[in-house]
Amino acid sequence: MPMQLQMSANEVSGYIADVFPQVADYGFQIDNLETGKISVSMKIRDAHLRPGGTVSGPTMFTLADCASYLIVLAHIGKVALAVTTNLNINFISKPEGDLVADATLLKLGKRLAVCEISIRSKATATLVAHATATYSIPPNRDVEASK
Amino acid sequence: MPMQLQMSANEVSGYIADVFPQVADYGFQIDNLETGKISVSMKIRDAHLRPGGTVSGPTMFTLADCASYLIVLAHIGKVALAVTTNLNINFISKPEGDLVADATLLKLGKRLAVCEISIRSKATATLVAHATATYSIPPNRDVEASK
Amino acid sequence: MPMQLQMSANEVSGYIADVFPQVADYGFQIDNLETGKISVSMKIRDAHLRPGGTVSGPTMFTLADCASYLIVLAHIGKVALAVTTNLNINFISKPEGDLVADATLLKLGKRLAVCEISIRSKATATLVAHATATYSIPPNRDVEASK
Amino acid sequence: MPMQLQMSANEVSGYIADVFPQVADYGFQIDNLETGKISVSMKIRDAHLRPGGTVSGPTMFTLADCASYLIVLAHIGKVALAVTTNLNINFISKPEGDLVADATLLKLGKRLAVCEISIRSKATATLVAHATATYSIPPNRDVEASK
Repeated sequence: MPMQLQMSANEVSGYIADVFPQVADYGFQIDNLETGKISVSMKIRDAHLRPGGTVSGPTMFTLADCASYLIVLAHIGKVALAVTTNLNINFISKPEGDLVADATLLKLGKRLAVCEISIRSKATATLVAHATATYSIPPNRDVEASK
Repeated sequence: MPMQLQMSANEVSGYIADVFPQVADYGFQIDNLETGKISVSMKIRDAHLRPGGTVSGPTMFTLADCASYLIVLAHIGKVALAVTTNLNINFISKPEGDLVADATLLKLGKRLAVCEISIRSKATATLVAHATATYSIPPNRDVEASK
Repeated sequence: MPMQLQMSANEVSGYIADVFPQVADYGFQIDNLETGKISVSMKIRDAHLRPGGTVSGPTMFTLADCASYLIVLAHIGKVALAVTTNLNINFISKPEGDLVADATLLKLGKRLAVCEISIRSKATATLVAHATATYSIPPNRDVEASK
Repeated sequence: MPMQLQMSANEVSGYIADVFPQVADYGFQIDNLETGKISVSMKIRDAHLRPGGTVSGPTMFTLADCASYLIVLAHIGKVALAVTTNLNINFISKPEGDLVADATLLKLGKRLAVCEISIRSKATATLVAHATATYSIPPNRDVEASK
């Protein structure tokens, strides 16, 4: 399991803008990408809010799923068909304002990748949610990656 | 843990339209509500889709969270502040077209409620995702419920 | 995903006694096996108990893991190397006396199998725990199965 | 959520030996305890092994549950009735030899505590499993703690 980046932050962002335009709409931005780690921030808008001004659970799920998808993508190359098979999320405290997700690659196997994600309020660094996610990597990974 | 409905499907729908207008925008509809069980269907629109026409993971998370939130709400009464503490979702197969979520209340305690949710493609009844969710019920439940 | 049994309850029990003698020591017994479903019961002994007479969490985890492993095994044949990749368990209520686990196969894919497991007190049928589990199926499944 | 230790490693170990003698039998040992973090190591014996010499899933579940229970206990004081409500575990790689679990307290609320646990092979520091666990803290926490 020697992890190695296959794409830069700019390449990942450009690829997502091409194949997942709706994801681009969420307002995600890669703040940092290094071997095994990524930081993705998200500007919170009215559509993400619940009564009382809290960010909705689905919004945090989306950020967790996106950050971990991007870290997997950056390490396996352009395999648009890698799919989330499991995501477990614990909601820890009430989020406030813009969020940042730090995702770590726990495993990068031939068939499965496993990530851990911490989501914090950007201003205060308070932990608001914690997730783990598993991705299934398609068998034709090498073929796809070389296209 | 004797479960008993506190609200009808119409009351639940009306309450959600009042306090969670954004949720109402998702196009959810309660198809059936009985003690311990709810069926919530969702019309799929372009914004929910991923490349290849598949419904996005966040869309299915949202449906799972919403269906289980509604079944909890229907059994504890108008407690808008009940919050999701954990949601674990397994993505099973590629969804097609409109979806329906069947949520079952596994536990309705004083402090925690636990639900199990199966999401199926409405046309084919194929299982596309399965989730479990836990909700924390605020201590002032009786007071809130009597307002 | 057309599920079909490859082994009978007796064949599954015999195989486990051969390759997992320690599992046999737990006192598990297959009560019922049919396509997509299994019931496994467990006699509770002192070693499984916690203060207050409650069955320990690890004991219920073991039962959940075992029941879902057996239902996967019964459908894929003798593949001793199938491995648990994820198990999520919710503890619902205090168990009393002997337990029974009902496991359902939610997915039987080429690479992954997903199960849902309900654990009940045998005497009262009260739900005490609920779990979902994912198994990775080795690539050489057909070869292994034919040995 | 200001976390503060209520017990030392010795006090925690002594308390467990008193109230959970069966847990003491597992061969767990607290290697380190500080605010918000604990390291618990486990000597692997034959009873924990599966065919091929791998440590069983239930053994790793037990270690994850125990390490996170101990870190909660150390921060809330002697509340023997705190109970696991959810545990999600991902099995990452094949374990070898003795194990060590590093548990971090993600949340210490009035009613719920959430922990993250990494389990590694002690000799190689390779990650073998990762878990998150939630504990319900009984309402009479202060009373219990002062006994």
